[in-house]
Amino acid sequence: MEKPFVEACFSPAIFSRHNCSGVNVVVIDIFRASSAICAAFENGAGMIIPVREVEEARQYKEKGFLVAAERDGIVLDFADFGNSPFNFTPERIKDRTIAYSTTNGTKIIEMTSGSHTTAIGSFLNISALVSWLISERRDVLLFCAGWKDKFNLEDTVCAGAIASRLLESGEFRTICDSVHAAIDLWKLAEPDPLKYIQKAAHRSRLRDKGLDDCIEFCLKPDFTEIIPVVKDGNLVPFKP
Amino acid sequence: MEKPFVEACFSPAIFSRHNCSGVNVVVIDIFRASSAICAAFENGAGMIIPVREVEEARQYKEKGFLVAAERDGIVLDFADFGNSPFNFTPERIKDRTIAYSTTNGTKIIEMTSGSHTTAIGSFLNISALVSWLISERRDVLLFCAGWKDKFNLEDTVCAGAIASRLLESGEFRTICDSVHAAIDLWKLAEPDPLKYIQKAAHRSRLRDKGLDDCIEFCLKPDFTEIIPVVKDGNLVPFKP
Repeated sequence: MEKPFVEACFSPAIFSRHNCSGVNVVVIDIFRASSAICAAFENGAGMIIPVREVEEARQYKEKGFLVAAERDGIVLDFADFGNSPFNFTPERIKDRTIAYSTTNGTKIIEMTSGSHTTAIGSFLNISALVSWLISERRDVLLFCAGWKDKFNLEDTVCAGAIASRLLESGEFRTICDSVHAAIDLWKLAEPDPLKYIQKAAHRSRLRDKGLDDCIEFCLKPDFTEIIPVVKDGNLVPFKP
Repeated sequence: MEKPFVEACFSPAIFSRHNCSGVNVVVIDIFRASSAICAAFENGAGMIIPVREVEEARQYKEKGFLVAAERDGIVLDFADFGNSPFNFTPERIKDRTIAYSTTNGTKIIEMTSGSHTTAIGSFLNISALVSWLISERRDVLLFCAGWKDKFNLEDTVCAGAIASRLLESGEFRTICDSVHAAIDLWKLAEPDPLKYIQKAAHRSRLRDKGLDDCIEFCLKPDFTEIIPVVKDGNLVPFKP
């Protein structure tokens, strides 16, 4: 059997040029959505409902759900907490269903509806994710969320870390320039990811809003062995 | 006065997220369109008309223009020659107007119609281009043509080479992750660009079609001091 391919996509605007039918898609948005989702499941969340509109999030709150929602770094008045991974503590969220407000994330999850499986990737679950992808023997598309449809450095570096492990396993191949670039950038970042990521524009945006306390945490591998996957549009924990 | 910004765009699919109004846009498509256009003007071409459709190219031929046109590496039967930079020799093209068939290139030139100036960039004119951009004291957007709307390595590396010179001049600044990534990839490629580019997917595509004889030429800096610029939708030579 031929080895499966690994590809990377640097922007939702490019996603339609990739074939995701029958492919395992990994959504990467490490500052902060995909890291927060991984942390939430490690801390016992039962399910996460991605919510596009603020009004929809408010309705979930009225129905008794926990709601994580912020706009421009300000926690919305009706929400239980914001979108930082540090908010999803066991005492708050164990066995609860959380409505997680993310306009971009919801859009991205909808875009991947033709995939075999859509999983959430970050440094926090990288080893478990890579092992599972290898065991699947199926094409992989690493889908970087980017920032307002533009390329971003932090998601690319994470995609490079995942891709380099997949290729080094000997179980995958690639003919994708985005994968080559992501791996080369990851190799530059690998000795000190926190230092490398200082130049990322979104790093500055989070700092300006006082939301950068979780950056170091988001770059640390293997906080969890859980792989969040999309099921019927919602996120559920999966442990292979 | 504040220093102007340099940004990079890795795909036509992302271009609309960038502001190009009043900006100097540099279109980069080094294998082979932007290199061929630079070579053509150095060898004396008077004007190049970018042509989107094959039928339109045929009409230009009937009107007596020189026509460069190929599809999938095969020179079209009515055309004078194909799209390789080696085809644009002085004896063929001096003072002639050439209709150059390029679907993607024509689309990209139309997309940049709101720019201050749209110029064609490649390694072949890099020093002249950089000097001119510095003298302009105006924001710059490095627009990589990519491949079927996807990221490609060779245009990114060229954008990185241009961006690193602009920033090293001390006359520009950036807050663009694409610029940081392009520069880091260029620094990896710089010691031996030909070797680095071996892994590029389009490098393989050209080799498979026997069109890769010009790769080394396309990576060589400063074949010309001419900067092709767009004027009324056509390309004309500009020497600052």
